[in-house]
Amino acid sequence: MTDISVKIENSLKEYLSREDEHYGILWDAMRYSVGAGGKRVRPMLTLEFAKLCGEDPVKALPFACAVEFIHTYSLIHDDLPCMDDDDMRRGNPSNHIVYGEDNALLAGDALQSLAFEVMLCEDTLSRVPADRAAKAACVLAKCCGADGMVGGQVIDLQYENKKADEAVISKIHLLKTGALIESACLMGCIVAGADDTLLSAASKYARSIGLAFQLVDDVLDVTSTSEELGKPVNSDIENNKSTLVSIYGVDECMRRAKALTEEAVNALDVFEGDTTYLREFAYKLISRKN
Amino acid sequence: MTDISVKIENSLKEYLSREDEHYGILWDAMRYSVGAGGKRVRPMLTLEFAKLCGEDPVKALPFACAVEFIHTYSLIHDDLPCMDDDDMRRGNPSNHIVYGEDNALLAGDALQSLAFEVMLCEDTLSRVPADRAAKAACVLAKCCGADGMVGGQVIDLQYENKKADEAVISKIHLLKTGALIESACLMGCIVAGADDTLLSAASKYARSIGLAFQLVDDVLDVTSTSEELGKPVNSDIENNKSTLVSIYGVDECMRRAKALTEEAVNALDVFEGDTTYLREFAYKLISRKN
Repeated sequence: MTDISVKIENSLKEYLSREDEHYGILWDAMRYSVGAGGKRVRPMLTLEFAKLCGEDPVKALPFACAVEFIHTYSLIHDDLPCMDDDDMRRGNPSNHIVYGEDNALLAGDALQSLAFEVMLCEDTLSRVPADRAAKAACVLAKCCGADGMVGGQVIDLQYENKKADEAVISKIHLLKTGALIESACLMGCIVAGADDTLLSAASKYARSIGLAFQLVDDVLDVTSTSEELGKPVNSDIENNKSTLVSIYGVDECMRRAKALTEEAVNALDVFEGDTTYLREFAYKLISRKN
Repeated sequence: MTDISVKIENSLKEYLSREDEHYGILWDAMRYSVGAGGKRVRPMLTLEFAKLCGEDPVKALPFACAVEFIHTYSLIHDDLPCMDDDDMRRGNPSNHIVYGEDNALLAGDALQSLAFEVMLCEDTLSRVPADRAAKAACVLAKCCGADGMVGGQVIDLQYENKKADEAVISKIHLLKTGALIESACLMGCIVAGADDTLLSAASKYARSIGLAFQLVDDVLDVTSTSEELGKPVNSDIENNKSTLVSIYGVDECMRRAKALTEEAVNALDVFEGDTTYLREFAYKLISRKN
């Protein structure tokens, strides 16, 4: 793990290191899902953009953790029986399988609150100007709410057994996964006090890699083996789900993913700092095998 | 309705007046439960404390709406089958009965995000200094999260069919209902730039009326008729739920409720402004019949 990955893991742990005689199970449930891993893609983006805009990335740690808390709460709620009804997540039993549906629901709710608490607590405000902290938290609130991630989930539910055209599929991707990635990038810039030109560039990068990521995801679902992917393949076809692959085919989707990646990388040109990590990150997303 | 009640209703409506071609049902579901009424107790407290601390209460409207959004989201999630499984709320079908469990879950999630969005959006920050907005939003995040409202719900779930002693019952009340009332009062003060002495007094008032409110609630459950109360009586006994009435009896609980109300009213002495509304509000809570 890199130095910065260790800092993210430590911060996440620290924010979650609370106990209580009576409702300790709630903190256990929150720790269970945050600790269950994931690649911390969103926190890394927050810290990288803060650094790229000339700020000490450590100052952006509360915002990096916040976006991971939001991401985790969305996974817990997604797995609930009334949503996707998934018993497993990343090779482990889902939160509600371990802690019960009621506690899982509440652990998700509390993770969302915690996200906003850590961005706006005294400790954060002693290191980040209040106007930047407030602006960053507002971006996250918008991107994870009704006109962002949650809105995307609602469209996704509505098209579960219904044909979706390209416009609808793109909107689901942009909202359901893209918005949170965008907030991760924007928050890094905002903490560093970046201007509107840089914020627009960060948005462009985020939206492009978000769409490219989703294209590759859908391609891998039909071209990969379940061994390579670590989860069942052909799930979209079996679930009768419209994807861009079902509309345009594998080759065209990969061509689009590459074009989007070039757009993402080009958007970084306006930044003066070192964009190596973010460029490599974008290329890695489309060459991955799982 | 008073002038200020109208302002609260208008603000709530305005914040919820969004539409979308694809996920409009989500905004419908959010509007349904926020519009289903309630007495707007928490928003009124926010505005009254802002006024009492010398601020134009209009500036506190985003914070008043935020606490109502949080309250509403908690009711939607509380009614879900995996929680209390209530089909009715305030005489109307619960959110999940009308919109389905998945959309109800997501409407609750999005109302929580919206609460933080409205407190920290550009429009709010153009009227309230960012440090005050951030501090107020942090208080709400803490009070509605794991160490506040959600923590209280978790204890409540654990004692559903288990005897609770006074310490546990009081902790449930303080967290499950008290914390949000406390945040409502504190946010009004914080928006007005009140000092720590005034914040402590507001906390004292809030905690005392919160506990008194709950005592009267439990008393009414055994002394009232279902016609007067507008909901089934003796529900605590039937649900095998420990309350302070089951420990101390009706008379002692009413004596305590009155003593707490006196403490609440006395806590207001440090404020220089007109405390008439808040005093009358505290007395009304214990003399109510439903």
